[in-house]
Amino acid sequence: MSKLPIMIDTDPGIDDAAALAIALFHPDLDVKLITTVAGNVSIEKTTANALKLIEMFGKDVPIARGCEHPLVYDLDDGSEVHGITGMDGWVFPEPDYSRLMKEHAVIAMRDLLMESPEEITLVAIGPLTNVGMLFRLFPEVKAKINEIVLMGGSVTRGNKTPTGEFNIYSDPEAAHIVFTSGLPIRMVGLDVGWKSFVDGKHMDMLPEINKVCEMLEATFRHYRSNQFEKGIVNMYDSDAIAALVKPEMFKWVNTHLDVELEGKYGRGQTVCDLDERYGKAHNVTVAVDVSTKVFQDWFIESLKNCNI
Amino acid sequence: MSKLPIMIDTDPGIDDAAALAIALFHPDLDVKLITTVAGNVSIEKTTANALKLIEMFGKDVPIARGCEHPLVYDLDDGSEVHGITGMDGWVFPEPDYSRLMKEHAVIAMRDLLMESPEEITLVAIGPLTNVGMLFRLFPEVKAKINEIVLMGGSVTRGNKTPTGEFNIYSDPEAAHIVFTSGLPIRMVGLDVGWKSFVDGKHMDMLPEINKVCEMLEATFRHYRSNQFEKGIVNMYDSDAIAALVKPEMFKWVNTHLDVELEGKYGRGQTVCDLDERYGKAHNVTVAVDVSTKVFQDWFIESLKNCNI
Amino acid sequence: MSKLPIMIDTDPGIDDAAALAIALFHPDLDVKLITTVAGNVSIEKTTANALKLIEMFGKDVPIARGCEHPLVYDLDDGSEVHGITGMDGWVFPEPDYSRLMKEHAVIAMRDLLMESPEEITLVAIGPLTNVGMLFRLFPEVKAKINEIVLMGGSVTRGNKTPTGEFNIYSDPEAAHIVFTSGLPIRMVGLDVGWKSFVDGKHMDMLPEINKVCEMLEATFRHYRSNQFEKGIVNMYDSDAIAALVKPEMFKWVNTHLDVELEGKYGRGQTVCDLDERYGKAHNVTVAVDVSTKVFQDWFIESLKNCNI
Amino acid sequence: MSKLPIMIDTDPGIDDAAALAIALFHPDLDVKLITTVAGNVSIEKTTANALKLIEMFGKDVPIARGCEHPLVYDLDDGSEVHGITGMDGWVFPEPDYSRLMKEHAVIAMRDLLMESPEEITLVAIGPLTNVGMLFRLFPEVKAKINEIVLMGGSVTRGNKTPTGEFNIYSDPEAAHIVFTSGLPIRMVGLDVGWKSFVDGKHMDMLPEINKVCEMLEATFRHYRSNQFEKGIVNMYDSDAIAALVKPEMFKWVNTHLDVELEGKYGRGQTVCDLDERYGKAHNVTVAVDVSTKVFQDWFIESLKNCNI
Repeated sequence: MSKLPIMIDTDPGIDDAAALAIALFHPDLDVKLITTVAGNVSIEKTTANALKLIEMFGKDVPIARGCEHPLVYDLDDGSEVHGITGMDGWVFPEPDYSRLMKEHAVIAMRDLLMESPEEITLVAIGPLTNVGMLFRLFPEVKAKINEIVLMGGSVTRGNKTPTGEFNIYSDPEAAHIVFTSGLPIRMVGLDVGWKSFVDGKHMDMLPEINKVCEMLEATFRHYRSNQFEKGIVNMYDSDAIAALVKPEMFKWVNTHLDVELEGKYGRGQTVCDLDERYGKAHNVTVAVDVSTKVFQDWFIESLKNCNI
Repeated sequence: MSKLPIMIDTDPGIDDAAALAIALFHPDLDVKLITTVAGNVSIEKTTANALKLIEMFGKDVPIARGCEHPLVYDLDDGSEVHGITGMDGWVFPEPDYSRLMKEHAVIAMRDLLMESPEEITLVAIGPLTNVGMLFRLFPEVKAKINEIVLMGGSVTRGNKTPTGEFNIYSDPEAAHIVFTSGLPIRMVGLDVGWKSFVDGKHMDMLPEINKVCEMLEATFRHYRSNQFEKGIVNMYDSDAIAALVKPEMFKWVNTHLDVELEGKYGRGQTVCDLDERYGKAHNVTVAVDVSTKVFQDWFIESLKNCNI
Repeated sequence: MSKLPIMIDTDPGIDDAAALAIALFHPDLDVKLITTVAGNVSIEKTTANALKLIEMFGKDVPIARGCEHPLVYDLDDGSEVHGITGMDGWVFPEPDYSRLMKEHAVIAMRDLLMESPEEITLVAIGPLTNVGMLFRLFPEVKAKINEIVLMGGSVTRGNKTPTGEFNIYSDPEAAHIVFTSGLPIRMVGLDVGWKSFVDGKHMDMLPEINKVCEMLEATFRHYRSNQFEKGIVNMYDSDAIAALVKPEMFKWVNTHLDVELEGKYGRGQTVCDLDERYGKAHNVTVAVDVSTKVFQDWFIESLKNCNI
Repeated sequence: MSKLPIMIDTDPGIDDAAALAIALFHPDLDVKLITTVAGNVSIEKTTANALKLIEMFGKDVPIARGCEHPLVYDLDDGSEVHGITGMDGWVFPEPDYSRLMKEHAVIAMRDLLMESPEEITLVAIGPLTNVGMLFRLFPEVKAKINEIVLMGGSVTRGNKTPTGEFNIYSDPEAAHIVFTSGLPIRMVGLDVGWKSFVDGKHMDMLPEINKVCEMLEATFRHYRSNQFEKGIVNMYDSDAIAALVKPEMFKWVNTHLDVELEGKYGRGQTVCDLDERYGKAHNVTVAVDVSTKVFQDWFIESLKNCNI
């Protein structure tokens, strides 16, 4: 089987780091481009973190810096969760900015897609600002996208607010553009992420496996010490990679989904009409459940590939 | 122990019928007043149904007819679920309207409360129109209310819409008035109702128990044939009575809760800030879980009291 | 010609005082009931002011105290404009509260209407809380209302906010109930009020005319000293009385009108579809212009009737 | 005096055609770039119209095609007003598409600005989609923009809806981005446009003046026959050019202004806080009045420059 060509839009962040590691070392995936977006931390930091990770991984994937600001309203970022750099707990060398593409991420995405002989799968694990911009500015790229697989939203409750999951809440208008794009979309949301965890035993194993795992363990320990104490460490973003290479671990449902953009409390909520109350056409395939055991085995096995 | 004096605001409906039966025959409860509200069906029908039930039960509780229309917007009623009368499947004699109080439910509630020597508990198992009206028109009654216990809302998803539970969605402005009333409130929502079910075996037992149970079984079978087939019949409204007499079957959480009144999709959503994202004072005690087994035993035992 | 029977819902306030004086002494009007509502100042103060005015005027009209709180959200009152009592600048004797009806304004309105042999015109010159409550609680009264004439709203800009006029902004949900009541409604708004002014010369004449005018001049001078300086003193609420007895001074347009209840900035805006963009049925007759000269002559002449 | 370097973002449309003619032939203006946007008609048509006009005018200004879709929601275009081509009533040769820049308007704007040795004034007379995209994608360009002068919005009422003016209503989110950009902005709105008209006498003169005027008269006669009958033909977009070269014809007010993005009726309303109700910093200088006579003289004189 030939590798699946993908591009990853991301705001690393430790969750993203695990997902990037798995994707970049996975035998079935060919990462053509990494684009950064403001989210967990500022665009300067997510870009620096992406560069640091790629260098550590020894991969030669192009990286382009994307949007610093959501489409409409100001960013209410995740820095209260993600600390100073978004990747604290491990000392990386200063990144080599000469690796960074000159063009803006949105232009880089357009160029890659329009010049690609084959369709590419877009994997989005941060706020959807870059992707929303891309579709509004260059709608012709849609013809070159095989599928969008994203981590974000929720079928039930949120984390940034009672109704809003962080990635979608951070740029609901961009998410609206993506969900109404007409492209095939698979969404793995927060509530499935709550079941996509490893436990303390798994975390203890990581440093033994390889250097990448050692780094991941250190940064997760730094940021999720409270989860470590409870013995459950969630791996939200890795779900998007799992959805690509092992979709059978999830229970998928086709549904109509839109993002709430208004209201006092609902802004950023992904409203999934599972009961068909609105009678609208399905536009998203949503993961509503996952096998925790299968996820855990897959996660650890996948990280074993990350040999540097 | 003396009986707990309560008043019940209701829109029967079969769910309400079971709750009313349990409450009216319960040895620990003293039902001082039943008020009707438009909801599952029109005010004419909910009032007729309340009269029919009281007559069948042989109880001499005063009944007052309440609001036909939600506070602000038109009612989007539940008649697609609740059929022609809201109590089909059993033949009741025509009700005796001379039993109906002359005064409007809101006036009747005011009079009862202001003249009562003791505080009364308000149990609401329909849309909150009457209660909202009462609080805005006669705020002095609050001093005479011990607690509000209500069935409505949800910590997670809705049933009328993806985000809105029927009772709250039917009059979100009234619900906002109630939730901001400053009174102690316990809410048992839809998602707890999903776990408050009896199974086919229980339903098969009902006709044997007594006449009231025979009637309940017949009407539930009429309306919830699809649930019967799956072997799970939900008893949402009875949860409000259970919360009064056996609160230990639920897991309760104090939280800040408000009703979303705006937005494209969120109208009527009960936004429970379980994670304290908004840092606001707690105003509601919400049931977040229930022991299905304890509920089932309690439900069947309680119905055994309904001897006529 | 027989007198036109009216009831006045009001939140005095000096504007209201002038309108009440004109109405109560007008040979063509028969004021059956005065009801008070929170608005310019608290319900305690508007009720006290109504009592003071009636006593000064020597009239024996029933007065009932109404709602202290808007239907849904808290009142953002006008006390920054209307000072301590809402009628400062004149020393009134303490009012005789034994004159106040025992019943709530909404009940008093219901009783008056249901017992009236003839239809009554409802004149509303404050927030529409009482009227909205009345229609939701006792919809049967609509059959006894000839017409609603109200001061409130605007075809163009607001005063409380850039889009919201004070009376409507103070209780937009109540206004929505009124505007969707199906009854004939004439609205005289803020922008017509801007043209319904008297000038310094008129104000100087007032104390000479009679005691009531002396009181009005004193209170207007207290509250509208800035208008006095510019030589233009607006008489917003009196427009509603003018609309009853001399409608030809206004230019009237039939239109569809609804109140904006949502949004960041638009809450309380009266959206008048003068250009028929929505193609909806007309529900309000709106004054879009007034002859300032005719208003001024009418205003002064009318006040001459106020002999005590 | 050296010429003022400007770039024009436009959706021609006949209004835009008059403004473009005046700008392109004006001795004090140096048009560096014309960018097109969907609005009055589709992007295909506005782009074709811009090409046709430039060719007729014999000008060698670069033209770039911009966004076909507003940032968030679908376009509710003006084709019911602007007919089949947006420039009917005059037969133009087919445009030469080889003149069109290869790059997207947003890229062309970025390139022009970043490579310009001097600051450029941005004149926007259509929906603000391109400008909003530009600022979010390439915020660094703001340092190269001298000022934004735009035709759009209203201090009072709208035309597309009772509250929304067409250009702003067509892309309120983009307008929000522009108004919160921190750049100096002058806005000439719809209500000033209502006073910026020529009369039948002026229109009759046009064909005599020159070929460009002949074309303008023919197209205005085609689209605004109803205005011709009333003897008043509004020249909204030309106000933006007038604001550049003869700002003294307007009365300007500094104010805080934001665009309403939510609500049932208010979406797209430019909320101007002229009375300082919100106490927020001024971000826009708004024209609140214009001398019709001065406008008319300027308009006719300016068109006399359009010799081809």
